[in-house]
Amino acid sequence: MIIKKKKYNVVVVGATGAVGRTMVSILAERKFPVEKLSLLASSRSAGQKLSFDGREVTVAELGEGSFDGIDIALFSAGASVSRQYAPKAVQAGCVVVDNSSAFRMEKDIPLVVPEVNPHAVRKAPGIIANPNCSTIQMVVALKPIHDRYRIKRVIVSTYQSVSGTGQKGIAELAQQSQDFLSKKTIKNEVYPHQIAFNCLPHIDTFLDNGYTKEEMKMVNETQKIFEDDTLAVSPTTVRVPVFYSHSESLNVETENPINIGELKKLLAQSPGICVVDSPENDEYPLAIHAAGRDEVMVGRIRLDLTHPKAVNFWVVADNLRKGAALNAVQIAELVIS
Amino acid sequence: MIIKKKKYNVVVVGATGAVGRTMVSILAERKFPVEKLSLLASSRSAGQKLSFDGREVTVAELGEGSFDGIDIALFSAGASVSRQYAPKAVQAGCVVVDNSSAFRMEKDIPLVVPEVNPHAVRKAPGIIANPNCSTIQMVVALKPIHDRYRIKRVIVSTYQSVSGTGQKGIAELAQQSQDFLSKKTIKNEVYPHQIAFNCLPHIDTFLDNGYTKEEMKMVNETQKIFEDDTLAVSPTTVRVPVFYSHSESLNVETENPINIGELKKLLAQSPGICVVDSPENDEYPLAIHAAGRDEVMVGRIRLDLTHPKAVNFWVVADNLRKGAALNAVQIAELVIS
Repeated sequence: MIIKKKKYNVVVVGATGAVGRTMVSILAERKFPVEKLSLLASSRSAGQKLSFDGREVTVAELGEGSFDGIDIALFSAGASVSRQYAPKAVQAGCVVVDNSSAFRMEKDIPLVVPEVNPHAVRKAPGIIANPNCSTIQMVVALKPIHDRYRIKRVIVSTYQSVSGTGQKGIAELAQQSQDFLSKKTIKNEVYPHQIAFNCLPHIDTFLDNGYTKEEMKMVNETQKIFEDDTLAVSPTTVRVPVFYSHSESLNVETENPINIGELKKLLAQSPGICVVDSPENDEYPLAIHAAGRDEVMVGRIRLDLTHPKAVNFWVVADNLRKGAALNAVQIAELVIS
Repeated sequence: MIIKKKKYNVVVVGATGAVGRTMVSILAERKFPVEKLSLLASSRSAGQKLSFDGREVTVAELGEGSFDGIDIALFSAGASVSRQYAPKAVQAGCVVVDNSSAFRMEKDIPLVVPEVNPHAVRKAPGIIANPNCSTIQMVVALKPIHDRYRIKRVIVSTYQSVSGTGQKGIAELAQQSQDFLSKKTIKNEVYPHQIAFNCLPHIDTFLDNGYTKEEMKMVNETQKIFEDDTLAVSPTTVRVPVFYSHSESLNVETENPINIGELKKLLAQSPGICVVDSPENDEYPLAIHAAGRDEVMVGRIRLDLTHPKAVNFWVVADNLRKGAALNAVQIAELVIS
């Protein structure tokens, strides 16, 4: 679905959350042609003011009439809000870009990463789903490799920051870290265990097959985005005591043999990727460097010594930007392109 | 080399370091039959007092005559100290258990993890090498799997704590975390980049093949310990902002098909392993729980959905204990057994 106007009425649902706030600033940064920006949230957050492009916008409460006259709605308020309100927004004539997991695996709803499958946007009946953060940065890095060498199997272990859980995750890591350093008792409310100075091999809930939902998102969303059920992903997702940006350690096995020099060039020339790979100068992608940046950073690119057609590398991106808000705004840009 | 006495004169070289201190407490905890304990360090640390089994022992300066009358020397003062003094200790009639990388890959020097290859101790000419921390906990978990299913290939990503760098690593993480939370400027002296709230895909120096020395230790030491050059390890080693215990995400491919129920039982019955694997109750191995414990904790055990003969699991151990000091004392126990 492509819409064409000079300027658009845009709404951000879940505007006061970590991703929602980032959506608002990215709309301004990228000079999205906004006629009017409405910010919506639950009654708890309504009344807050956020700045957009130098002006103050008051957050309103999400309700039945919220989408009248709106062209594009960016949703980031959780799956249940999306399930309830995204269809209403579509009925009101809106194109919805949804950052929740609500519609991602629905057959008729495209799941889009603009660097990978921009064409899928055209098939949208009204809702376009934004993939999960850990999937987005991985598929941006995999795309040129799959095109050139054809990927058979990916084994991935993640190092995911607490901002993926939202502002409450950020607050819990800060509070626990401070309490730990002051030798006070650690309280945990957001995570099932202390996250400060610890690693939790547990993101989202566990399924019967022993994998978490977060892990199965990486499996299923990757196949849907590449429209390729043979692309196998074996994931372990881990929360680490980092505020912003997710890091991922990937082992990628391909159908065709890889030339490592060619691969590095290929990645460096691919849209949305920044290769940072000079280990001799201590240069490789780092969470603290990726935070606030748009690119997916790739480094530590090296042949797997144990397999003739496999490579290892390290992928880092800002989970609130490319992993969520930026990707959603990029989808909206495709919608109006 | 096996020696037999009622009690032994023992020396710890590098006694004031993070591993050295742990060696001293483990010797007491395990009631190692110590006649006299001498503690040695560089001139900078000589004169410090450490408590051993309720008594105070003054740290002396390491020198030429340090090993006269000593039966067993535990070295943990870095490779160059080991290269200089371990041969002198052997000449003085000592059995040396060396925690540095100095002799690990030397053909005639056994590299021992008591749960895996205790027999190798008998071949020792005087020096027995203690493997690297990240290798030890991995091979303890791999041993029963290799015996039963025969391992072909391991893909491992690590989450290693700063205590692996010693007390200066611990101090740097604490200081940087405090400075970050207080919005002060972060200084880094020990690591090439900020470690607080960040992950560094860089441990030890980089080699020409794009891997770090730490990574190649996991490759080469594992093959030596299992006496099997066909056991292939593909590693990515990462420093994370955790004080104690290393975590590891493993993907293990075997020659023979794995029954997951049988595998869990097998691991639970194996020496040195504690299976913690009730994800439905949020129970899995955690760095904060492994710290101070002797066992290698294994959990998140599940079949790899992308390969008919592979499993994923999560391994956590106290890097100062099983990863260093405990393993060294266990080797000394084999020497006198």
